[in-house]
Amino acid sequence: MQAVEHGSSLTPARVRAKSLADHIGRSVALAGWLHRYRQLGKISFLILRDQSGLAQIVVDDPALRERLTGLGNESVLIVRGTVVAEPQAPGGVEVHQPEIEVLAEVDEQLPFELFMPELSARLPTVLDHATVANRHPSRRAYFQIAAALVRGFRATLDGAGFTEIYTPKLVGSATESGADVFALDYFGRKAYLAQSPQFYKQMMIGVHERVYEVGPVFRAEPHDTIRHLNEYLSLDAELGFIGDHRDVMRVLRDVIAGMVAAVGSTSTAGQIELPEVPAEIPALHFTDAMELLGHTGEDAADLAPADERELGEWARREHGSEWLFVTGYPMARRPFYTHHDPERPGYSRGFDLLFRGLELVTGGQRLHLYADYEAALRSKGLTADGMEGYLEAFKYGMPPHGGFAIGLERFVARLTGVENVREVTLFPRTMTRLEP
Amino acid sequence: MQAVEHGSSLTPARVRAKSLADHIGRSVALAGWLHRYRQLGKISFLILRDQSGLAQIVVDDPALRERLTGLGNESVLIVRGTVVAEPQAPGGVEVHQPEIEVLAEVDEQLPFELFMPELSARLPTVLDHATVANRHPSRRAYFQIAAALVRGFRATLDGAGFTEIYTPKLVGSATESGADVFALDYFGRKAYLAQSPQFYKQMMIGVHERVYEVGPVFRAEPHDTIRHLNEYLSLDAELGFIGDHRDVMRVLRDVIAGMVAAVGSTSTAGQIELPEVPAEIPALHFTDAMELLGHTGEDAADLAPADERELGEWARREHGSEWLFVTGYPMARRPFYTHHDPERPGYSRGFDLLFRGLELVTGGQRLHLYADYEAALRSKGLTADGMEGYLEAFKYGMPPHGGFAIGLERFVARLTGVENVREVTLFPRTMTRLEP
Repeated sequence: MQAVEHGSSLTPARVRAKSLADHIGRSVALAGWLHRYRQLGKISFLILRDQSGLAQIVVDDPALRERLTGLGNESVLIVRGTVVAEPQAPGGVEVHQPEIEVLAEVDEQLPFELFMPELSARLPTVLDHATVANRHPSRRAYFQIAAALVRGFRATLDGAGFTEIYTPKLVGSATESGADVFALDYFGRKAYLAQSPQFYKQMMIGVHERVYEVGPVFRAEPHDTIRHLNEYLSLDAELGFIGDHRDVMRVLRDVIAGMVAAVGSTSTAGQIELPEVPAEIPALHFTDAMELLGHTGEDAADLAPADERELGEWARREHGSEWLFVTGYPMARRPFYTHHDPERPGYSRGFDLLFRGLELVTGGQRLHLYADYEAALRSKGLTADGMEGYLEAFKYGMPPHGGFAIGLERFVARLTGVENVREVTLFPRTMTRLEP
Repeated sequence: MQAVEHGSSLTPARVRAKSLADHIGRSVALAGWLHRYRQLGKISFLILRDQSGLAQIVVDDPALRERLTGLGNESVLIVRGTVVAEPQAPGGVEVHQPEIEVLAEVDEQLPFELFMPELSARLPTVLDHATVANRHPSRRAYFQIAAALVRGFRATLDGAGFTEIYTPKLVGSATESGADVFALDYFGRKAYLAQSPQFYKQMMIGVHERVYEVGPVFRAEPHDTIRHLNEYLSLDAELGFIGDHRDVMRVLRDVIAGMVAAVGSTSTAGQIELPEVPAEIPALHFTDAMELLGHTGEDAADLAPADERELGEWARREHGSEWLFVTGYPMARRPFYTHHDPERPGYSRGFDLLFRGLELVTGGQRLHLYADYEAALRSKGLTADGMEGYLEAFKYGMPPHGGFAIGLERFVARLTGVENVREVTLFPRTMTRLEP
């Protein structure tokens, strides 16, 4: 297979900034954005940015220096010149005797400078101008990490016999959690935006046995916090013929390891501290976690963010692990499809995976018997209305199964040490932000 | 990496139906669905279905035969027994002396039988009960083909330096085409469901140079035809630093070849006739296509479905190709961001790719200069309202670029020879169908 080279019509063939050092002594063509132009005495330095990195071009021709003075940053250029070794230049090379062709000229001031090592603008300004801000190498790295995580997710599951599915985001009922769904008019009737592919991935166990989906989910939660987005990317997996939730946890461990390894193989790997993923991630039952935290009575009903942080510290201290499973959450805190623990009444076969003291993944074994669904709905005071298609899967035979969901943006934030999840999102959707 | 085996808790370890022949003379455990149970004289045949295929189990124990009589099809079973070579059995093997464990018992009549080679129910019934119907091997194959196509799409683009992106489906304005968008209330203001990631993928050229996205798109078109879905999966790609639209067509050719090859490497490959993808797909300018079709005047303004079929026949006859590019569509028929052909006033650098006489892909070169966008919007009578974030990309420097979008379901339908696109969709969304 012959893929078209970047800038295939260029002569000489286009070279990318990061591989300039392979072309010392040769004439090359570079293409990219005018990242910065600095005039010093009799020579000037033009920094050209492309997807791979930065290249330094030395300009000494007076006419060309004059012409470049009037060119705004982010103008798009083709630069032809000779590659010269120069130990003091970034990357040890620079380009001399440049000829410059302008593909797109910028004549407006940028909302902020892109050539500084960090974007100095405040986050709202950055997000208002995300179209431009995302070009900054520090932000671009977030999105390369996101793509690598998804690639690792898929590769691990493809290798384990999973089939990718694509399920509808427009759904006819909002039964999964009731509140906090977006509603719309669908040819005269009401439709909703799917909060998760949960029902569909379970239904598809009957078809492929092991499935995964990568897709947007929509939450109409009126929370404007650093942990929430109203639209985010959910990485979902579900597998059949399990013994119990521990089979799901083992698959999840491999998926996480594959995702981190995929980030490790990108050019951004050196910039962040990648976590080890132990062969077996330590696991703590919910009741043991509560005992460890010293919680009793009403305090022992759920994990607060501070509890998660403390457990994260504990796992690091006791097990040298940045990862910790908390298993067996109380049934009362889990959705109706959660499988109970037959040996511990009131507790479930649901789990969370904490990463660096924050919940990153939720999963568990699900109910698989139709009669159990009928009973679970009854006990939660729910009816089967609007769930007929879902319940049909169980009426007509489903094996023991379970799965999990990973929020992509939260993973990127935790991995890069960014507090606010919207900072690592391409074009975040929050209560007050629908654009760009 | 050690992935958990299907049914890891089974003893002996679970074997899949398709690999039974590797275990002749051994005790195995199978797990799956009761596909069919047939009683003959003194022995009975139980056909078990798993994700890999079917296995035949011979039952001669009277007590077990009696017990199986009461078990509904689609019950979920674990079958332990000995693998025996039997030339007359499907696959040349069968399982003898079975012990059967019931994981989930079905006691209701199915809406249609799943064990016939073809589903005999009418399409609306099939889709009403998609949860069950999708288990039928003929339907499951559609979804395996879909997954393979997407895998081939991504693999080809990953190999050509593209970065995957995930852009919002909730958008603040419906400017791309105006009509036929779904609208919803978003915390007190109006939001819309994205009809395509077109604007975002163009904006992201400034970040990654080459991008792709696999995601749902939403069309509120009130058309109830065999070619339309109101939600479908769009495979989008966009690349920068092109010479013209022909660079895009070359990438598209490789993508298509990669997608078809990926289907060829699945177990479903033998069931469909896979097309050759020529090293160079023949291309015909729109005006030449019109001449070939004998259209003049008003008839020569656009291609009707019958025209596409005729051109498909022509490509097959003249070039031995099931693929044909039609290039240079009139500007009047293309969206405002389409790049004009500088050498042919009134015509564009947009193209369609026809597959077996049906439009499968639309693409082209886009405008990249801010001034051109201003002029294009003016000439179409549009304003920049709601497009500020998009237009900012061009104000701040964009290279020549172009891309394309492939409708996944349409590709699956055309490849499998299915007329109605909703037949090959997991859970189709049409004007009258929001469930399951």
